[in-house]
Amino acid sequence: MKELKALFDRIAQRTNINLRELHFDVVPFIKNLIPLQQMVKFYAFYGITPHHPLDFQFRHSSLAGSYFLGKCRALNSILYKSDIRGDELKQQGDVFSYRQFEIPVSQNEGFDIEDSYLVKTLVHNFSHDPETLETFFIKDTISTHYANIHGSPCDGSFLGPFATVDLTTMRDSVIGTFSYVQTGEIAHVNVGPGTVWIRNPGEFNFLYRHPLHKLSDYINFAAGRPPQGFIIDFVDDRKGSFQRVFEVVNLEPIPVPRSASLDRYAVVKPKTQIGENVLVAQRAFLQNASLGKGANAQENCYIVNSRLTGNNVTAHGAKIIEAELGQNVFVGFNSFLRGRPDCRLTIGKDSIVLPHTIIDIKQPLAVPAEHFVWGLITNQADLESNSLALSDFSKIDGGLVQGNMSFEGRGARFVAAFRERIHHILEANGAFFDGTSNKGHAQRNQNISFNTIQPYPNGDLGCMYPTIIIKT
Amino acid sequence: MKELKALFDRIAQRTNINLRELHFDVVPFIKNLIPLQQMVKFYAFYGITPHHPLDFQFRHSSLAGSYFLGKCRALNSILYKSDIRGDELKQQGDVFSYRQFEIPVSQNEGFDIEDSYLVKTLVHNFSHDPETLETFFIKDTISTHYANIHGSPCDGSFLGPFATVDLTTMRDSVIGTFSYVQTGEIAHVNVGPGTVWIRNPGEFNFLYRHPLHKLSDYINFAAGRPPQGFIIDFVDDRKGSFQRVFEVVNLEPIPVPRSASLDRYAVVKPKTQIGENVLVAQRAFLQNASLGKGANAQENCYIVNSRLTGNNVTAHGAKIIEAELGQNVFVGFNSFLRGRPDCRLTIGKDSIVLPHTIIDIKQPLAVPAEHFVWGLITNQADLESNSLALSDFSKIDGGLVQGNMSFEGRGARFVAAFRERIHHILEANGAFFDGTSNKGHAQRNQNISFNTIQPYPNGDLGCMYPTIIIKT
Repeated sequence: MKELKALFDRIAQRTNINLRELHFDVVPFIKNLIPLQQMVKFYAFYGITPHHPLDFQFRHSSLAGSYFLGKCRALNSILYKSDIRGDELKQQGDVFSYRQFEIPVSQNEGFDIEDSYLVKTLVHNFSHDPETLETFFIKDTISTHYANIHGSPCDGSFLGPFATVDLTTMRDSVIGTFSYVQTGEIAHVNVGPGTVWIRNPGEFNFLYRHPLHKLSDYINFAAGRPPQGFIIDFVDDRKGSFQRVFEVVNLEPIPVPRSASLDRYAVVKPKTQIGENVLVAQRAFLQNASLGKGANAQENCYIVNSRLTGNNVTAHGAKIIEAELGQNVFVGFNSFLRGRPDCRLTIGKDSIVLPHTIIDIKQPLAVPAEHFVWGLITNQADLESNSLALSDFSKIDGGLVQGNMSFEGRGARFVAAFRERIHHILEANGAFFDGTSNKGHAQRNQNISFNTIQPYPNGDLGCMYPTIIIKT
Repeated sequence: MKELKALFDRIAQRTNINLRELHFDVVPFIKNLIPLQQMVKFYAFYGITPHHPLDFQFRHSSLAGSYFLGKCRALNSILYKSDIRGDELKQQGDVFSYRQFEIPVSQNEGFDIEDSYLVKTLVHNFSHDPETLETFFIKDTISTHYANIHGSPCDGSFLGPFATVDLTTMRDSVIGTFSYVQTGEIAHVNVGPGTVWIRNPGEFNFLYRHPLHKLSDYINFAAGRPPQGFIIDFVDDRKGSFQRVFEVVNLEPIPVPRSASLDRYAVVKPKTQIGENVLVAQRAFLQNASLGKGANAQENCYIVNSRLTGNNVTAHGAKIIEAELGQNVFVGFNSFLRGRPDCRLTIGKDSIVLPHTIIDIKQPLAVPAEHFVWGLITNQADLESNSLALSDFSKIDGGLVQGNMSFEGRGARFVAAFRERIHHILEANGAFFDGTSNKGHAQRNQNISFNTIQPYPNGDLGCMYPTIIIKT
């Protein structure tokens, strides 16, 4: 344990040095957040397929429970039950388009996770930064429960629980609990909790702030204790169901259509239906869930007593409970949509639930088709202030303030950006596979072999992993 | 599968080139012996502890179901459920005594397994060859079911099922089914089936041949089909019991005394008692077995309805059924000792069952204390021709022929050599641990973390493993 403690202290110090201008001390937040002894309880694992480039290199790291797919590297890092998913890594010879630039990729892209501490964080690699095409770096960074680092290189940053940084290079910044940032680049910024901030410089700037006194019922995080709230309780209540999938080396596969893939580290409870071209990722939880053709259930998402008609995106960490979703409905990162058996939630086709939306109803509620919804919604009145038809949003040119949301710029560009993104996600996930062409993750992530790796069981090196290198 | 087939063909060709003088063709023996498709069903695994030097390097190999402990290397090899156990590897700075030489070990010893094909073979590293102190090589070698390569570097050789090569450097040789060779060095020799050959040049030469028409009931092997016989049936009947220990990543540990170790890949059935300083190795099978203080149960051994009083060695692959063994009884490699519920076998204290002995009785049988026993024994008359008191054996000076056994040389040296060896085995295994000193494997092989590694699931590389390197 001695080496692990020393590593923990060093990572905390390095992050604090980077955050000195923000006067942010990570230590009270992470000290005792995970008893280091826990780190020996969970093995780490990485996937081997002929479709994903391998170049795993772990040196002097601790990797408990973490999942790796595709090229990787982790030097002196502590990863605890995190998912590092590299199935969209750029390849040597690819050409990356960025505005007027066509940039050739000069070598295979890889992760570079160094001196970082990640807890239950999802890292997905669709990285966007034209300055670092070949390296997705995460350095001197601390990230806590159910945060998402999505195509977002970062350095010297701190992410609170359920924080999401999406396609945004981030340096020396703090992202508060349940905040979502998609702004291309940020540095030396402290984003308060419950912020949803989507900006494309020169085009639009969307900003919403959750009312903190209400948000804290769902999720709150204070120094010296683990994160708390309904969403944590919801996840904790379902922990036991994951036990078996981690206990057994080779599970009996659950049959799914040939064009679909179900990760062996997902939980599938009875009455679940999985359609053609469906992707179910690791640590997804499905219970009495119907996933129509081309729907996907991404990492850490929960779909319970709900029906997704088809081509639905359920982004990383989203929860959908007692709901009916029409064709093409998109549910953004970490959204928490809770209908109840006697008052279900329905969402009309082509609607877009922005990331980090909370819908929690005690009366039936219907989101109309082709609408944006955002923020915190507990009834019909909230829905009216926190939604807008896509066609009306497209008409905005200049600005709009509605409830806690403010928008500046061109609404049409905002709508188009979301539509393009959703199309890309469906395409990348294999939703449009026709039996021969348009293959995506649903087709390529089948038949993954998993290697499980374990730390030194005791001694000074206890809980640390030996150096492990895996190459094609 | 394409790459695996190519590798298989290359290994067979290389071995045949080495065996050309003996006109031995390995292909009919190994073709279809293991359907290559099997190779994707079993994961391989290696142990991590602070006490065993790590330097695993697998390149372009297939390693299905194999177990590795301690430094290793396997280049273009096919290992199928083999055990490679490196817990007696010599360390840099050790001094190796050989006759009048004191040889300093210049670097940490390692395995070097290259272009080889091993099936269910146990490799244990206590290597003896003063010419290759730092490398335990196994090259261009094919070894089949339940063979033992024990401290025996080998090159260009073929080992039949249940063959044992013990402390013998072997080049371009064939070791027949159920043959045991401990001769220091052999080259260009074809050892027929059922031979037990123990030689120390200038001191003694022990030779026994099992009657082949009887041996074939127990074990026989012909080209074009898997090995057959009672011993194979016995092992196959117990295969199912191993299923759970391989299915689950982290088993609930079975409590044993603090000074004992029970490998998590052993099977322990009810009514088994494990005493102080006991070592139970991987793939051992214990059922209603009582292991007294300092007893050991090595790889692939089976102890069923039997009592071992204490300081007993049950060497690799030995089976003990319905028997009572006194203090210090040694049972050599691959011996098959079968009493029956109504006619048990008893073996008096300090007796030595030579390797590859078969005792299979239908009347009660008692081996007296302080005796050697060898060969095939089915009744009292066989026992009389296949045993001798150690004190009488010590008196031989010149030669003795008794039944199928012939001995030349000094009996006292033969007895002393066995006694020294048994003492070394008990010492190395931790039988003499007193709570602080005399630690051995029983104390050091506790708390092993296991990494499980899996092959490419399909494609040209299907069943092959990516390059994997693990270092401290």
